[in-house]
Amino acid sequence: MFDAIVARGRVHDEVDDAAWLQAMLDFEAGLARAQDVAGVIRAEHAERISEACRAERLDAAAIAAAAAETGTPVVPLLAALRAQLPEEVAADVHRGATSQDVVDSAAMLIAARALEALGDDLEAASAVAAGLAEEHRATVMAGRTLLQQAVPISFGLKAAGWMSGLDQSIHRLARVRAERLAVQLGGAAGTLAGLGGRGVVVLSELARELQLAEPALPWHTTRNRTAELAGALGQASGTAGKIALDVQLLAQTEVGEAREAGPAGRGASSAMPHKRNPVAAVCALACARQAPGLVATLYAAMPQEHERAAGAWHAEWQPLTELLQVTGSAAAWLRDCLERLEIDPERMRANLTVEGDLGCADELIDRALLAHAGRAA
Amino acid sequence: MFDAIVARGRVHDEVDDAAWLQAMLDFEAGLARAQDVAGVIRAEHAERISEACRAERLDAAAIAAAAAETGTPVVPLLAALRAQLPEEVAADVHRGATSQDVVDSAAMLIAARALEALGDDLEAASAVAAGLAEEHRATVMAGRTLLQQAVPISFGLKAAGWMSGLDQSIHRLARVRAERLAVQLGGAAGTLAGLGGRGVVVLSELARELQLAEPALPWHTTRNRTAELAGALGQASGTAGKIALDVQLLAQTEVGEAREAGPAGRGASSAMPHKRNPVAAVCALACARQAPGLVATLYAAMPQEHERAAGAWHAEWQPLTELLQVTGSAAAWLRDCLERLEIDPERMRANLTVEGDLGCADELIDRALLAHAGRAA
Amino acid sequence: MFDAIVARGRVHDEVDDAAWLQAMLDFEAGLARAQDVAGVIRAEHAERISEACRAERLDAAAIAAAAAETGTPVVPLLAALRAQLPEEVAADVHRGATSQDVVDSAAMLIAARALEALGDDLEAASAVAAGLAEEHRATVMAGRTLLQQAVPISFGLKAAGWMSGLDQSIHRLARVRAERLAVQLGGAAGTLAGLGGRGVVVLSELARELQLAEPALPWHTTRNRTAELAGALGQASGTAGKIALDVQLLAQTEVGEAREAGPAGRGASSAMPHKRNPVAAVCALACARQAPGLVATLYAAMPQEHERAAGAWHAEWQPLTELLQVTGSAAAWLRDCLERLEIDPERMRANLTVEGDLGCADELIDRALLAHAGRAA
Amino acid sequence: MFDAIVARGRVHDEVDDAAWLQAMLDFEAGLARAQDVAGVIRAEHAERISEACRAERLDAAAIAAAAAETGTPVVPLLAALRAQLPEEVAADVHRGATSQDVVDSAAMLIAARALEALGDDLEAASAVAAGLAEEHRATVMAGRTLLQQAVPISFGLKAAGWMSGLDQSIHRLARVRAERLAVQLGGAAGTLAGLGGRGVVVLSELARELQLAEPALPWHTTRNRTAELAGALGQASGTAGKIALDVQLLAQTEVGEAREAGPAGRGASSAMPHKRNPVAAVCALACARQAPGLVATLYAAMPQEHERAAGAWHAEWQPLTELLQVTGSAAAWLRDCLERLEIDPERMRANLTVEGDLGCADELIDRALLAHAGRAA
Repeated sequence: MFDAIVARGRVHDEVDDAAWLQAMLDFEAGLARAQDVAGVIRAEHAERISEACRAERLDAAAIAAAAAETGTPVVPLLAALRAQLPEEVAADVHRGATSQDVVDSAAMLIAARALEALGDDLEAASAVAAGLAEEHRATVMAGRTLLQQAVPISFGLKAAGWMSGLDQSIHRLARVRAERLAVQLGGAAGTLAGLGGRGVVVLSELARELQLAEPALPWHTTRNRTAELAGALGQASGTAGKIALDVQLLAQTEVGEAREAGPAGRGASSAMPHKRNPVAAVCALACARQAPGLVATLYAAMPQEHERAAGAWHAEWQPLTELLQVTGSAAAWLRDCLERLEIDPERMRANLTVEGDLGCADELIDRALLAHAGRAA
Repeated sequence: MFDAIVARGRVHDEVDDAAWLQAMLDFEAGLARAQDVAGVIRAEHAERISEACRAERLDAAAIAAAAAETGTPVVPLLAALRAQLPEEVAADVHRGATSQDVVDSAAMLIAARALEALGDDLEAASAVAAGLAEEHRATVMAGRTLLQQAVPISFGLKAAGWMSGLDQSIHRLARVRAERLAVQLGGAAGTLAGLGGRGVVVLSELARELQLAEPALPWHTTRNRTAELAGALGQASGTAGKIALDVQLLAQTEVGEAREAGPAGRGASSAMPHKRNPVAAVCALACARQAPGLVATLYAAMPQEHERAAGAWHAEWQPLTELLQVTGSAAAWLRDCLERLEIDPERMRANLTVEGDLGCADELIDRALLAHAGRAA
Repeated sequence: MFDAIVARGRVHDEVDDAAWLQAMLDFEAGLARAQDVAGVIRAEHAERISEACRAERLDAAAIAAAAAETGTPVVPLLAALRAQLPEEVAADVHRGATSQDVVDSAAMLIAARALEALGDDLEAASAVAAGLAEEHRATVMAGRTLLQQAVPISFGLKAAGWMSGLDQSIHRLARVRAERLAVQLGGAAGTLAGLGGRGVVVLSELARELQLAEPALPWHTTRNRTAELAGALGQASGTAGKIALDVQLLAQTEVGEAREAGPAGRGASSAMPHKRNPVAAVCALACARQAPGLVATLYAAMPQEHERAAGAWHAEWQPLTELLQVTGSAAAWLRDCLERLEIDPERMRANLTVEGDLGCADELIDRALLAHAGRAA
Repeated sequence: MFDAIVARGRVHDEVDDAAWLQAMLDFEAGLARAQDVAGVIRAEHAERISEACRAERLDAAAIAAAAAETGTPVVPLLAALRAQLPEEVAADVHRGATSQDVVDSAAMLIAARALEALGDDLEAASAVAAGLAEEHRATVMAGRTLLQQAVPISFGLKAAGWMSGLDQSIHRLARVRAERLAVQLGGAAGTLAGLGGRGVVVLSELARELQLAEPALPWHTTRNRTAELAGALGQASGTAGKIALDVQLLAQTEVGEAREAGPAGRGASSAMPHKRNPVAAVCALACARQAPGLVATLYAAMPQEHERAAGAWHAEWQPLTELLQVTGSAAAWLRDCLERLEIDPERMRANLTVEGDLGCADELIDRALLAHAGRAA
């Protein structure tokens, strides 16, 4: 009922049930191909398995329903997949792998795909902010501390600050994507047993197949990677929240220095037809405020028992999915907010009650734009 | 994909999109009837509105999709509802109300219905624990502190502790249900304007109609009620988590004092066919561990601006829904776990390495059972 | 360095090291007296122990330093206490008790004392809000939703909302104090062994001695009580945060409808001598924002192993102390803020850009004041 | 009272009041020297100021007490500092800076110093784990999933996993130290006004003086840096928690595969003299479990208003200090735990109920040790 608000944007589609199912199948297909390269299974088996790993051929709802019996959807997924294949090919499906290998690798694929969508919205928002920074170098307004006017600033400097926060978030997410989203493969207890001594080769090939980082060890209960991903997402949400908060404050009736232009109907109220709400900023902040609790859940899940956790691992799936989604939604709303943002320089000047020069504001904007360009290059 | 694990049980159905849609319609129907009683609108209009407020007549997906324009699903919901009614009746729909009146009241209805389902599972789990407490008064086992054997206890006393935690959670949820789940009605800014001076009468009648508590004031930005609800849910999740953790520890291969009996296939592993996992306890704990972060989000949302928050209110919807669901799921799994639990008194005695008497264990069990009976009476 | 800001008010003194030490000694003294009444130890021993249980006679720093060896300060505390007593009296110190009995009971005493101080500040704040509600019934101002002017309200109604939130928090804390702060006594593993079958009598007498509730069972690993306390504190913090946020928004340079009057120097800026900051509101909100994370930590600590947790119990001490302190500080700042608050009715009227009547505002204020009086009576 | 448990180790001393006072003075001294280099103030003034910036010359308690008036300790700090200097020198103290410049830069210095202490303990723990990985390549034990024995592993592989988690945490903290701990300098509203156009030069020199990163812009309300620091600390805590949890589980009476050797008295119980508790592991986990809530508080504080936040900034100080402290304490306890750890290979073998080979365990250990050496080199 609330997805249009708290699950806006492209990330939503990258984390839904169909996406999870396909990501798990991508793991099985990649594993088969990697085992072919490593000489563990026959090439034609790998090809047959790979072809069968298509979500549209399986009954996602039935697989999900059967997940309760074993505590993961992997057992019913494998049953459904194997049922499509000749017996001797079916025997090569999932060879040497364990359920957590499938779910963790799928989570990393899901994250990689979601981060691409998220990154697009953050980049677009940063580009708008960069344009505002350049355009409004000479737009003088009140700098406000503790919600009191303090000394003058330029709106360009404020926009450069927004851009800088976005760029830092983009940079961090890109690093997490490149270095920390790793494939998972360890087998039952992380020894890569059952692969005839070729386990490490299969691990390397699988990482290449799935375009994920190759870990030194299986990381079934070493959850630094999920924590870093969570932290980077929380950072992006917080950044979106800061900018949305500024827009809301500037859009107050008594301030009126900014407003969200909108399509017909946008921002209307059920009780007050005269009113125009900064809907995108409100929704961006609403999404951003849901991130810290989810981040905490994922950090709290780090202490995991022995070779597979008895609950803490399962406790990651929903919060990680939600965190990707609310962050994606915050970014989509923020992009929308900034793309529609109308600035009122005259009102900014009229509101100004404090005096002073702009100091090094221009020089600072230049520095920030230079950093921005370097990032983009 | 993970609903069978993290959204098990009856609560799930009480918080889905259809449930939200019906709860919002229940508000509009109740409001119309209350306004009839209060003499604000005509009886036949109230009747027509009330009849129209059925979720199956509306297109939930279309309403949800249109929610983005105004930041709540209420505007499109009203449009769809009014489109079914003659113009003069339609004009009496939602009279004097604002979007937040609808969503907050619906949230309270959702919570009331979910708490009933949740309460059933907690009661059932408590009943099993009470039976274990009675049955195992003489079953001696090791009391363990810091995971070291300390002095002997009876398994009956341990089960009485489980029962006590469940009973405390049940009691707290019942109090929140009776006293804190209140109707919301205030109109645009909480003054009950637009109801011809009959606002307070309508408020009282609406509370009666919806079987929710009647607040002294609209509570649009006074969120103590949602915080208390969140706290009570968090408590129930934590209690389920404690018991599930004990079961897991007792079920360890090296301890073997308890096990979850299961239907065929339950607890099987994708890599290790010989292994039998305590799936219900694992999943109960997985659900419980997701609650604290959601509780924090709802407490963090309490500081809300002026007469309607610019984001913090919207930030409640998804976490509240999730919190109801994971708590319901934790309770459903726990009930399942306890109903299947097999105790091995011989193993308990064989494992015991410490000496001592059982102190007042029996007397304490009696006290706990007495309190339990008092609650149930 | 930041205690004047984040640990303001009387709660601070109720939760410091001296207070913890005395509370632990109060437990030992109460236990001795209870065991005298129960006939477990001799009256003169109880008297001697009781006299010795004074914090100023012990070296708090040395006890704290020695806590690392055993993971609680109880072992060195007992050694220091016994060293002051003749051997046969010393043997009756702590009879039948375990470290967790001491620390948990002390935590409940600490909480009880802190809640009294906290309650005073909340009551005072509520009284100011009640006065404002009465005084400003006719003070018309803009009702603001999503930070946009919506329809008129009275400032009296806004103040009544503040009062209502405070009263709900006060009521909840009082209930937790009366019903949920319980003594802890169970001995090594919760069986009340080692007290010659008189354990339950001692438990009852101890509860009476310490003016804490008497639990049916020891609750060493059934942490519903700490969770409820945490939830009630989080609610009070959130309420303080909501009011402080409103004050900050009203005090904005561009709004100017309220300001904190202050002593000379209050609200000054290191860089901007012309500026006057709403320091009390800022600090109240700063304290309030620290509560939800601490609440989450305490809920997350509920799943505790067997008869004593291996870490989750110890993880409660610091967050509970902090949570009492930041909530106390938020309340102290809020009281200060409201006691100094200056309202500008002319500015409120001048800012108003929307039209309409006040609906049932007066009637709602009456209802809220009636509830307030009922609470206070 | 609990510092020996929750604030163990060297980080404690790096984050106390004296450390904060000195860090703030280091900022003022560095600022004066930077302004000398930039030609903003005279060299002899800079020298005099620099000499005066010694914490032992000031009354920390008086400064802290006066902080309440302005909401930061900076105004009284400056008054005390200037009182020691001739008037014309005093006029050059804090030139062009604002309170947040001081507190934020001090926080980064505090963090840098704390991370050095923290890093030492993490490195030491990792070195022990590396030794165990090498030594126990052939020590066969049960791999356990969901607390059930699954297939054999070597203890060396388990220890390699511990090492890998520690190394990832060390690496992340080192990156945050090098790249993300930045100086703060912006003046009243971030324009670097009041420095005669030399603001950016002063900023660069100050970064060099304080050995902190140089930001493109002041980051008064762009809190990505604090969030990343919080995330890296949370990761280190979570890693310590995972290892401590494994040790506790191995040390269970019924498992007995590991124990903490200890000095006399370590691990004793107040009620059970025969018992030996894994105190260091328990305390490490107790500290680690406090981190996620604090991390959430710092992420939730990211949305900060305009040019200085009205509460969210002040809300960072205590949680950041606490987070450094509990993470430092978790690391110190973990190091202690691992340095004392005694492994029982015979018990490991005797407990083993499952069959199978060790797969690629040796090869994986080699990979992990190679990565470990690369990090250390």
